[in-house]
Amino acid sequence: MSEISNPRIVLVEPQMGENIGAAARGMWNFGLEDMAVVAPRDGWPSDPAIAMAAGATHVLENARLCDTTREAVADCTHVYATTARPRGMTKRVVTPRQAAMEMRERAAQGERVAILFGRERSGLGTEDIILSNTIITAPVNPAFASLNLAQCVLLVGYEWLLAADETPAVAYDPGKGGMADREQIEGLLDFVEGELDETGFFFPEAKAPTMKAALRNLYHRAPLTAADVGILWGVMRALVGKRRSARDR
Amino acid sequence: MSEISNPRIVLVEPQMGENIGAAARGMWNFGLEDMAVVAPRDGWPSDPAIAMAAGATHVLENARLCDTTREAVADCTHVYATTARPRGMTKRVVTPRQAAMEMRERAAQGERVAILFGRERSGLGTEDIILSNTIITAPVNPAFASLNLAQCVLLVGYEWLLAADETPAVAYDPGKGGMADREQIEGLLDFVEGELDETGFFFPEAKAPTMKAALRNLYHRAPLTAADVGILWGVMRALVGKRRSARDR
Repeated sequence: MSEISNPRIVLVEPQMGENIGAAARGMWNFGLEDMAVVAPRDGWPSDPAIAMAAGATHVLENARLCDTTREAVADCTHVYATTARPRGMTKRVVTPRQAAMEMRERAAQGERVAILFGRERSGLGTEDIILSNTIITAPVNPAFASLNLAQCVLLVGYEWLLAADETPAVAYDPGKGGMADREQIEGLLDFVEGELDETGFFFPEAKAPTMKAALRNLYHRAPLTAADVGILWGVMRALVGKRRSARDR
Repeated sequence: MSEISNPRIVLVEPQMGENIGAAARGMWNFGLEDMAVVAPRDGWPSDPAIAMAAGATHVLENARLCDTTREAVADCTHVYATTARPRGMTKRVVTPRQAAMEMRERAAQGERVAILFGRERSGLGTEDIILSNTIITAPVNPAFASLNLAQCVLLVGYEWLLAADETPAVAYDPGKGGMADREQIEGLLDFVEGELDETGFFFPEAKAPTMKAALRNLYHRAPLTAADVGILWGVMRALVGKRRSARDR
């Protein structure tokens, strides 16, 4: 994985330094480091960007400053444009997830991939989209589709990492070790049921079987670890002891 | 989809109003509206939150202000805790994607789901995690794992929307309509090849078949629409005309 080149994140005419810094953070959160900044409105380097990037300042320090998008992608073989509005372009439109999988494949074959992100309000210009091979459109709430620049970078970075991530969907499940076996739970239930019987808890007698079944179901349904059963033994013994000493007083 | 209740986003002791506002934006970007704020450090309502939430202020206006996490999830049947460090808890740990799928299933069965997000620096406390059924941990770059509060909300919201999103991975492919058929391209190539033959382009003659094959491969490899072929006819005719008129001068 260290041999393939990670995609270049190209911020086209970004306005707020804070957003550039937040984008750098979002990139590094998901292992991306290659940033190009095209004609940033407020100049370069940007103090607000550096302040916001805390922990990912090396992304800014190593960023390419370019005059044009063409310059920023000059050495790239495949360019993605992030935009919500394909504006009648006859280009493939893919989800971030699909794009991430394709980018991984391209990178593995030695291709250099760039992803363009437009300025805060207006997004990418037509000329930037023309320069691109493929369009990325993230599914959003149609009633509120405006994704912040840094958020958009974050989602693409997240999908890039996930496309090669091997974390199982269920990373840890206590059910996969340490769980109480049926006999441990039955042993506890026998004790509790016996003690309850003594107190006359299962009354009236006609309902006793139903009540006992409900009690046993409750414990067998719970995902109890062996340690949990130990805790419950302690709890039950303490309560029984309290009752007994109260009775004996 | 409108009948199921969307998960509640619970911000536990958030510090910066800006982050609460950004979280509200991220929620509404993905259709989430039910926010609870537990003991916000700088009071409530928060002007910085409102300023940052532009376009999603209704999320803040309708947010529940609570004193404790317990109060914020009182009516919920399943609580997720977002945290990077399960700290030896014997609870299921799932990815945001897995959590989103489970939450959709729970919501469809009428369950009320909440997701806890911790304060900016320190995250969720042990007592909040104890109150939860399941832990959500997002895969991140282990070298830079600190996700901003609003970014974390964004990722969970994104996965929530995606879990019910039906956008195809390839939402639009010009290959699925409007593409040039082989005969259109062959027709253009016959014209171009004939014109080039006249100029003596295919030289030396021994190499002509290879050169012609390379030219044809180039055009057949390109994903050309029928309109593209029309454009290329125009371009070729114009260039031929220019050459002819130059020759005739």
